[in-house]
Amino acid sequence: MATGKLSCSSHLQIRKVVPIYFTMIGLFLALLMVSLHGTAPVDSSFPYSVPLDPQGSLRLFWNVSYPEKVVHFQILIKDLKFGLIFGMSDRGEFEEADVAVLWSDGLSSFFGDAWSDKEGRLHIDSHQDYQLLSARQTPEGLYLVFKRPFTTCDPKDYLIEEGTVHLIYALLEKPFHSLSAINISTLHRGLQRVQLLKPEIRVPRLPDDVLTMDVLAPDVVIPNKETTYWCYITELPQDFSKHHIVMYEPVITKGHEAIVHHIEVFQCSEDYDTIPHYNGPCDSKMKPERLNYCRHVLAAWAMGAKPFYYPQDVGLAFGGARSSRFLRLEVHYHNPLQLKGLHDSSGIRLYYTPSLRKFDAGIMELGLVYTPMMAIPPQQKSFQLTGYCTDKCTKTTLPSDGIHIFASQLHTHLTGRTVTTIIARDGKEVGVVNVDKHFSPHFQEIRMLKKPVQVFPGDSLITSCSYNTEDRSQVTVGGFSITDEMCVNYIHYYPRTELELCKSHVDPGYLRKYFNLVNRFSGDEVCTCPQTAVTEQFNEVPWNSFTSDVLNSLYAYSPISMHCNRSSAVRFPGDWERQPLPKITQALPLADTTCPTPKELVSLTPVLLEDHEG
Amino acid sequence: MATGKLSCSSHLQIRKVVPIYFTMIGLFLALLMVSLHGTAPVDSSFPYSVPLDPQGSLRLFWNVSYPEKVVHFQILIKDLKFGLIFGMSDRGEFEEADVAVLWSDGLSSFFGDAWSDKEGRLHIDSHQDYQLLSARQTPEGLYLVFKRPFTTCDPKDYLIEEGTVHLIYALLEKPFHSLSAINISTLHRGLQRVQLLKPEIRVPRLPDDVLTMDVLAPDVVIPNKETTYWCYITELPQDFSKHHIVMYEPVITKGHEAIVHHIEVFQCSEDYDTIPHYNGPCDSKMKPERLNYCRHVLAAWAMGAKPFYYPQDVGLAFGGARSSRFLRLEVHYHNPLQLKGLHDSSGIRLYYTPSLRKFDAGIMELGLVYTPMMAIPPQQKSFQLTGYCTDKCTKTTLPSDGIHIFASQLHTHLTGRTVTTIIARDGKEVGVVNVDKHFSPHFQEIRMLKKPVQVFPGDSLITSCSYNTEDRSQVTVGGFSITDEMCVNYIHYYPRTELELCKSHVDPGYLRKYFNLVNRFSGDEVCTCPQTAVTEQFNEVPWNSFTSDVLNSLYAYSPISMHCNRSSAVRFPGDWERQPLPKITQALPLADTTCPTPKELVSLTPVLLEDHEG
Repeated sequence: MATGKLSCSSHLQIRKVVPIYFTMIGLFLALLMVSLHGTAPVDSSFPYSVPLDPQGSLRLFWNVSYPEKVVHFQILIKDLKFGLIFGMSDRGEFEEADVAVLWSDGLSSFFGDAWSDKEGRLHIDSHQDYQLLSARQTPEGLYLVFKRPFTTCDPKDYLIEEGTVHLIYALLEKPFHSLSAINISTLHRGLQRVQLLKPEIRVPRLPDDVLTMDVLAPDVVIPNKETTYWCYITELPQDFSKHHIVMYEPVITKGHEAIVHHIEVFQCSEDYDTIPHYNGPCDSKMKPERLNYCRHVLAAWAMGAKPFYYPQDVGLAFGGARSSRFLRLEVHYHNPLQLKGLHDSSGIRLYYTPSLRKFDAGIMELGLVYTPMMAIPPQQKSFQLTGYCTDKCTKTTLPSDGIHIFASQLHTHLTGRTVTTIIARDGKEVGVVNVDKHFSPHFQEIRMLKKPVQVFPGDSLITSCSYNTEDRSQVTVGGFSITDEMCVNYIHYYPRTELELCKSHVDPGYLRKYFNLVNRFSGDEVCTCPQTAVTEQFNEVPWNSFTSDVLNSLYAYSPISMHCNRSSAVRFPGDWERQPLPKITQALPLADTTCPTPKELVSLTPVLLEDHEG
Repeated sequence: MATGKLSCSSHLQIRKVVPIYFTMIGLFLALLMVSLHGTAPVDSSFPYSVPLDPQGSLRLFWNVSYPEKVVHFQILIKDLKFGLIFGMSDRGEFEEADVAVLWSDGLSSFFGDAWSDKEGRLHIDSHQDYQLLSARQTPEGLYLVFKRPFTTCDPKDYLIEEGTVHLIYALLEKPFHSLSAINISTLHRGLQRVQLLKPEIRVPRLPDDVLTMDVLAPDVVIPNKETTYWCYITELPQDFSKHHIVMYEPVITKGHEAIVHHIEVFQCSEDYDTIPHYNGPCDSKMKPERLNYCRHVLAAWAMGAKPFYYPQDVGLAFGGARSSRFLRLEVHYHNPLQLKGLHDSSGIRLYYTPSLRKFDAGIMELGLVYTPMMAIPPQQKSFQLTGYCTDKCTKTTLPSDGIHIFASQLHTHLTGRTVTTIIARDGKEVGVVNVDKHFSPHFQEIRMLKKPVQVFPGDSLITSCSYNTEDRSQVTVGGFSITDEMCVNYIHYYPRTELELCKSHVDPGYLRKYFNLVNRFSGDEVCTCPQTAVTEQFNEVPWNSFTSDVLNSLYAYSPISMHCNRSSAVRFPGDWERQPLPKITQALPLADTTCPTPKELVSLTPVLLEDHEG
């Protein structure tokens, strides 16, 4: 086992929880008693689980109560020494994070809600919103159970929202006499991304004639490097007729639960009769170019995700005449300890049926066309690009009863930080398809929507991404390369329509005007020749706050070119050039951020767990 | 007396406060009892006072506790019928306001914290942050005492900040069976602006040889129209030597307390030997043009302001050789009831001494130069302009020990909405001189700073104003006309220096580039001739989101022309053109918005005041 130098005996042994409080004034004491009587340790199960560290020595279990707007956490600490820091921050930083701390001064153990400042120093929080429920020692380790409301009234606190949450953890390996003595930068620590607020969806019954097919890595030796994307081409049986995938789930080689980070299965393009049988790293120079045409997602799983069920009447078609037999399996191995010689056969198990369901599921691409015309200046903290699916396109293509979106996979390349898709109707924002304010390009799950979203002909779908290019000195243009950018929401919906792609980019004429005016402003009176490639022209812009701001204003003002397409190259008939931007006259109302009732705002000091004997 | 149709007998007679609660669950009851025992009615005095309505039938008294971060309000309601709504909102709107409501259903009376939605409908607040302390009937009327913390954790609540607060009030003239039955748009209602968070400044002792001089309106008959600015020229005695003004206070004709809105005393320019003895409305066509040269502020008072004291060692010089003998008194009468025949002799009483104090006070103008080069596009909700006093100018002009700013008067014309001056040192924002997020051009007091602010050579002073031009179809340029705009902070400081004016505007060359690129972008290939006046060029811009955004980006990027002046026309020696914008690498930390401790978040339902007999 790979516990290495972290495997020690438990210096901190907790036998029972003795709630004693350092009360500040009498009033608080009374409040505390009320509160704790009202919240006996929750004995409900924890349906969600994820390993926190790559060694697998910390495991997080959790459940979500939407009526109470509370998450219950249970952490299993296999080898506890002098404590644990667990919490959340915007993008996984240890500075300005919101954490629960379990610590021991060698004699007594404490639990408290704390926050870290810009230098990573810990401070006890004036509101104790992480609330300890129990701590029990078992043969497997210490189980620590606590809860945290989604929202607190403390602006220093992290707001638990839909989408990705960056969890952070650190183990204390020596005693600390106080919280403020802990210097978080010296600790063994790490980051794990999860979707905390899982949707509560009733699991549909699988059909009686369900079959399974495993798409697995063929006994791959995991490279002893931190990050590997492994690519493997496999094929469906000859003459495999049309079936419906109704469910899929991950198959993880035992012991690799903390290393297999995410898995995707793609179907290749039907335009190619054959695809080379590659088996190797996806970034290898040896990888055949044709693998790039295997982009139709059949399944996508990431750490912490549950099995993916299609709705009762819906299935994802595969097999049959107009469908490639070739599948590409991609497995992301995260091996920061650079362990050697691990043999892996992880992958995806597809559950499918020959009894076709009522509806074919469809996958539609929303967002930006892959074109260098949509670019992000360098040194931007948060530059936003927006792609439109206009009312005209949905009017042209969607059935009169509309479509039902039940899942969504957000996608950008390396600089993406947030992704959102909004529905607008008659100029008013009426709903959200998906939003992730803490999006990470390293955590791209297909996520079931909490509630399916209906889209009608005439609705607009507006997909916005924000990017951070603070570490780049050159412009970042839209495109396929990993150093280019994308802004895409793959929506999963039914009934399937002919509309495969509903995306936009800025009108090329307006972009030309931009290059002209920038050259004019910068004193370069040489006319920019229209035949120069867009990327070259962007590279020649003297980037500063003015040219960046004006590009932003241009994108917010210019008409767009719509790609309202049957497949990625075939447009529906109609006039799709120089289309007006959807006008939004009324934004979505802000989320209800009412504070929790006073009973949630109670304990004000760390809780003493117990005094050690001797 | 002018109580008119609102003068009725009191239908709602409150004899004693019987605290009975509609509790939601047992827990809250307990919390309530704790809370009320902890907050016995405050018997402290109310040093601040202002009439709320022009009839004078409602008077507000208040005090501020900075340690507790709480304002205590006492309202005297002369003729109470069925209740009162009192509260605060961003700019005095009755929609989306945060209000305390006293109401009667004809049998019982209630008090509660409520908020109004976008349609002006009232809703009880989930947190009762206006907290009733007492209600007592007296021969003068009902005194209602309640308190409100500066900040609550409820995002629906108004945040009480430094600067202007727009108070709203409305009287209930019939019974309402519930809060939600009240339609605020049908009520007699009004608005009063005050500075709620007055600074706590020790009143300096006046010198023994203090003299007074009254600068009063000469028995003016107040015009029977809503708004009059009255102008009156008076003069200092012949051969009046240099004196120090050490204090001033308003003198309000009895009964006019709710009509005299604000008063200013200006000294005229020494450039003119004589100024015509005008006595009439300031906007009259008969007003001599030369009155425009009476702009040096000696005193400024607005409703609710306390007497203004200079610091112990400081006085404002007037009289003597290099000083005009002519003073302009300006009184703003607010007479919405259009009362006729009121004779008024209100004005300012100056307290001054011949024993000159250690320091002359100085007044310095910060912000924007009055030039059409600084313009605001039409249809803007919040367009920001910024004027700079650069490190180079302060380095050139300030004494090595720096200056002490002790008061500030913010100034814009009609579209100004916020004004802020920040101090930056070595690229870092280090302090605030003055901030008003609810600034109103109709309420321009000289305000003492809570704590004097020191400015050293090399510091930058950055003054920003935001403007709302949503009701304008034409561009608004900088200038003197009331329909033009200004962005100014008159700082009062000592020791007086030669620096009278430290302001900036955009570099004219960069503005020319803007006009060029806008014409280019808009397809108008005709070269904009440089000799065209700036205002004309701005008027020819086709305003849209792009041209507005680009102007904003231009102002944020372009170098500036500095006016670092001895008097408004004489620059200090040095190179002041094409100066770089101060670079700010570190913003001021956000204000501490920690939530109040739970004891502040208590009662959750309206409080029943008493049951009527019969």
